[in-house]
Amino acid sequence: MNTWFNDHKSTLDNAIEACQKRHHWAAYPEVPSEKIYGEGSKQAGEDAFNALQNKPFALSVPMSEAAFVAADAKSPYGIELGITYPQLPVDKLLEGAEAAQKQWRRLDTDTRAGVCLEMLDRLAKQSFLMAHAVMHTTGQPFVMSFQAGGPHALDRGLEAVAYAYQAQTANETSAEWAKVVGKNRDGEKIVATLDKHYKTRGKGIGVVIGCATFPTWNSYPGMFADLATGNAVISKPAEGATLPLAIAIDIMRQVLADAGLNPDLVQLANTGGERAYTQALVKDARVKMIDYTGGPGFGTWLQNNCPDTQLYLEQAGINNIFIESTDNVKGMANNIGFSLSLYSGQMCTAPQNIYVPKDGIDTPDGKLSFDEVAAAIAKSVEKLLGDDNRAFAILGAMTSDAVKARVGEANAFGEQAGKVVLASCESDYAAFPNASTAKPILISLDSPDHDFAQAEQFGPVAFVIACEDRDDALTAVCDSIEKHGAMTTSLYCTDADFKQTAIEEIADAGSPLSINLTGGIYVNQSAAFTDFHGSALNPAANTSLTDLGFVAQRFGWVTVREERH
Amino acid sequence: MNTWFNDHKSTLDNAIEACQKRHHWAAYPEVPSEKIYGEGSKQAGEDAFNALQNKPFALSVPMSEAAFVAADAKSPYGIELGITYPQLPVDKLLEGAEAAQKQWRRLDTDTRAGVCLEMLDRLAKQSFLMAHAVMHTTGQPFVMSFQAGGPHALDRGLEAVAYAYQAQTANETSAEWAKVVGKNRDGEKIVATLDKHYKTRGKGIGVVIGCATFPTWNSYPGMFADLATGNAVISKPAEGATLPLAIAIDIMRQVLADAGLNPDLVQLANTGGERAYTQALVKDARVKMIDYTGGPGFGTWLQNNCPDTQLYLEQAGINNIFIESTDNVKGMANNIGFSLSLYSGQMCTAPQNIYVPKDGIDTPDGKLSFDEVAAAIAKSVEKLLGDDNRAFAILGAMTSDAVKARVGEANAFGEQAGKVVLASCESDYAAFPNASTAKPILISLDSPDHDFAQAEQFGPVAFVIACEDRDDALTAVCDSIEKHGAMTTSLYCTDADFKQTAIEEIADAGSPLSINLTGGIYVNQSAAFTDFHGSALNPAANTSLTDLGFVAQRFGWVTVREERH
Repeated sequence: MNTWFNDHKSTLDNAIEACQKRHHWAAYPEVPSEKIYGEGSKQAGEDAFNALQNKPFALSVPMSEAAFVAADAKSPYGIELGITYPQLPVDKLLEGAEAAQKQWRRLDTDTRAGVCLEMLDRLAKQSFLMAHAVMHTTGQPFVMSFQAGGPHALDRGLEAVAYAYQAQTANETSAEWAKVVGKNRDGEKIVATLDKHYKTRGKGIGVVIGCATFPTWNSYPGMFADLATGNAVISKPAEGATLPLAIAIDIMRQVLADAGLNPDLVQLANTGGERAYTQALVKDARVKMIDYTGGPGFGTWLQNNCPDTQLYLEQAGINNIFIESTDNVKGMANNIGFSLSLYSGQMCTAPQNIYVPKDGIDTPDGKLSFDEVAAAIAKSVEKLLGDDNRAFAILGAMTSDAVKARVGEANAFGEQAGKVVLASCESDYAAFPNASTAKPILISLDSPDHDFAQAEQFGPVAFVIACEDRDDALTAVCDSIEKHGAMTTSLYCTDADFKQTAIEEIADAGSPLSINLTGGIYVNQSAAFTDFHGSALNPAANTSLTDLGFVAQRFGWVTVREERH
Repeated sequence: MNTWFNDHKSTLDNAIEACQKRHHWAAYPEVPSEKIYGEGSKQAGEDAFNALQNKPFALSVPMSEAAFVAADAKSPYGIELGITYPQLPVDKLLEGAEAAQKQWRRLDTDTRAGVCLEMLDRLAKQSFLMAHAVMHTTGQPFVMSFQAGGPHALDRGLEAVAYAYQAQTANETSAEWAKVVGKNRDGEKIVATLDKHYKTRGKGIGVVIGCATFPTWNSYPGMFADLATGNAVISKPAEGATLPLAIAIDIMRQVLADAGLNPDLVQLANTGGERAYTQALVKDARVKMIDYTGGPGFGTWLQNNCPDTQLYLEQAGINNIFIESTDNVKGMANNIGFSLSLYSGQMCTAPQNIYVPKDGIDTPDGKLSFDEVAAAIAKSVEKLLGDDNRAFAILGAMTSDAVKARVGEANAFGEQAGKVVLASCESDYAAFPNASTAKPILISLDSPDHDFAQAEQFGPVAFVIACEDRDDALTAVCDSIEKHGAMTTSLYCTDADFKQTAIEEIADAGSPLSINLTGGIYVNQSAAFTDFHGSALNPAANTSLTDLGFVAQRFGWVTVREERH
């Protein structure tokens, strides 16, 4: 443990610098190549994944006295997982966390950072195993599973460690304080001197409630923010997405054990699918922070039932694209088509509603009509996913039956209320004949006044919506952000003045904004150290991954001052 | 407005440096001297105060359409104030705040900081007027009213501006982001380049609910934190303590008007004593942050009724002194006696329970018995307040009839359950014959198991409590912090090993700690830039004045990224 901070210090320094300068930087390589990850690493990852199936998930450092209870059942790609995971009673989990935390919170900031950095480093080495685990719990395509489940998630975790480190080193931990408090009879100044020390203490146990689509990417920030600021963490995976977090927790507990620390600092909450278990856990007074990614139903429950607990929530939203004009119709259509297709639209950053003035948009070749815009996007999706191998690599599988059902509902709505510009259909994957798939459905609507489209339709469902004119479209987009929330907004505009107006209005509404994306960068992508994921300014998320606000309330400062004699 | 940031930049720089180094520093002079504040400033302040009485408080920049409604009635020093203050309907207040905020949140961080610094500077110039206003609404003695109501409060406001500035300048506001996204057919790298801009936006309207005893000291941090991070602020004074905040708001609105900004950015909520008014205000969805200092009853109401609002709460607590041993009995007794007497114990930092091992404490002259410790403290209070002029300067007056009644209740309890070591009595102030006064009552108890002493008895009420031994005393102190909360803890201890144990245990329990105070610094005092007031780690306060956690969630970052063509 003693050398870890120094071993990884350059990584931490680079991360802090990148958070500040916000240039492109990554600590963990995103290319799933054996040149980087070592010869045989690819096969080793697959073998390790296969070896986990159809048996209890035995942590290397067991959670003592845990029973084994099933969690993930079937992969979205159609294979049975059949894994059971350790389960402890809620009180036992909390007792373990408190005991481990007592020791952990007294360590200094550097030591805790060193342990976190070692955890990230060891997790990075298992990125191929993690890729399979993420793929077969979430339905993500393989390369995305590798990147978003491994290095990109780890970058987000590192980002949280970097911010936590900054917040805890924002002031000196000791000071000499001297003040003239009067004069003696000879007129000499009387100086009172205090020696002051400033100690951080974590606020208490953190619970991180994961989501079904990005179990590690959305959990690591909260987990590492909690740990780095001196708290124990209990990870509660979403139903069906336990394996990636069980693997991560296993590795983190090994690191703690190697350091001679109590491994119960990081524990898995396997609820066995019982919401009452989760509710008892989060309502306990020992839990001081909850990070939650998921639907607003349970988010609202948390707000109403945990009034004394700091909540970091990422919930539902509707992401909009506003097409005002473009100088590159083809690039725009391809970029949007990819954004709609990637992981079957099952990203909190995926666009849903595409606002277009009803009289069409300006292009270098003159006006493109509303219908032509819709057709161009539909065509790009069709072409992109026409080949099943490419569809396999981009579309992936649907994470739940609810998403699948939604495509059918959208089709029924589209046929009745608008026009189905692009029908959804399945895709065939040679390797996984039982995968649950659906290509995006695209529906055009004559106005923003359709309730179905003005609700989040999570999955491969999108709408092209006609507005009176560009001012109306801007108003509709901003109203939608304020009312429904948004994790992303996308704008296509070649009019510099209007663009500036839109930037300020959308910033006021509080959404991150991407402008004129026509190449290989997509609105769905949110990268650590450069993109604030969520603005904390609209209903989709009350926090950002990651800024100082995400970490600074997870610990407190204790001032200890002593009179010098 | 354009020069203010540069005019005051050195003040900001010094404040940021002091927050980081935590040495003694103050921006606004604490000595109520005309040498500093200008010839005639003392009389001018008194005249200005007298001129305000018995009439409507006319803001220089009126809150348009406001009616005038009474608020503060009678000074704790017995004089009638007879002032009415502008009152607007809740919805009107919020509309005004929203309109003003639209403009304000788009300004850059420097410009907003400049306006805040100019406000603080102009407020500082009115410190004599403010002293009278604070004295006659809270009952503080005059010099304390000057210091805690003026310069010390302004230092706390400046501290919030400094932290807000740091949080908003933690990263660059623009970046060039370039990433290799592939290779072309000739093997050349394809680089995607995005221009990124990062904009802050305030979260929304902040409401700051003041307390009856320190209207400015406890309100300025929230008010300036809200303003500096781009939000409008509505100040809701405690009943009877409106005048100091009305004066402050008047000056702040003048600064805004001089800058050509909408003065409704800062407004007064005069509730006319109606709690329903306050409840309607804080429950409105436009209100995003609430700073509250006051009793836990309304604090809990806020937690249960404003689940979606960020709350910064300072509530009740019990502050303990733990006497294990000392090398300076007289210095200790005098220091404690002063702490109990200052402003009649009506400070959130004032000690209440003094834990002493039942077999007494070690001193250079051998054991001092439990009863002797209690007697020494009682004697120091008696001597300190024996002279009415000195009592006037230290004790001040009681802020409410509730505090006065509490002294009687404590006396009844003491006679029945313990021993009244020092009886309370009134003090006579020549200048204010009708002042409501009470010197501290000191009661000794044979164990910590008395409910009356294990509840906050806000005012001049203190207990000396016998414990089995020092370990029991430490346990009692830590349990009390965790259960009841504490803003301060004080320890007297000459045993280096035990002291170190106590420091870590008390830090775990989460209270600020002062050790071996025997001179002119008191446990009640909490100074900006060096002492974190509140640790955010125990029930007395969920936040600290001021750290990054106090400011960083009051605004969000909007990422705007545009593809470079």
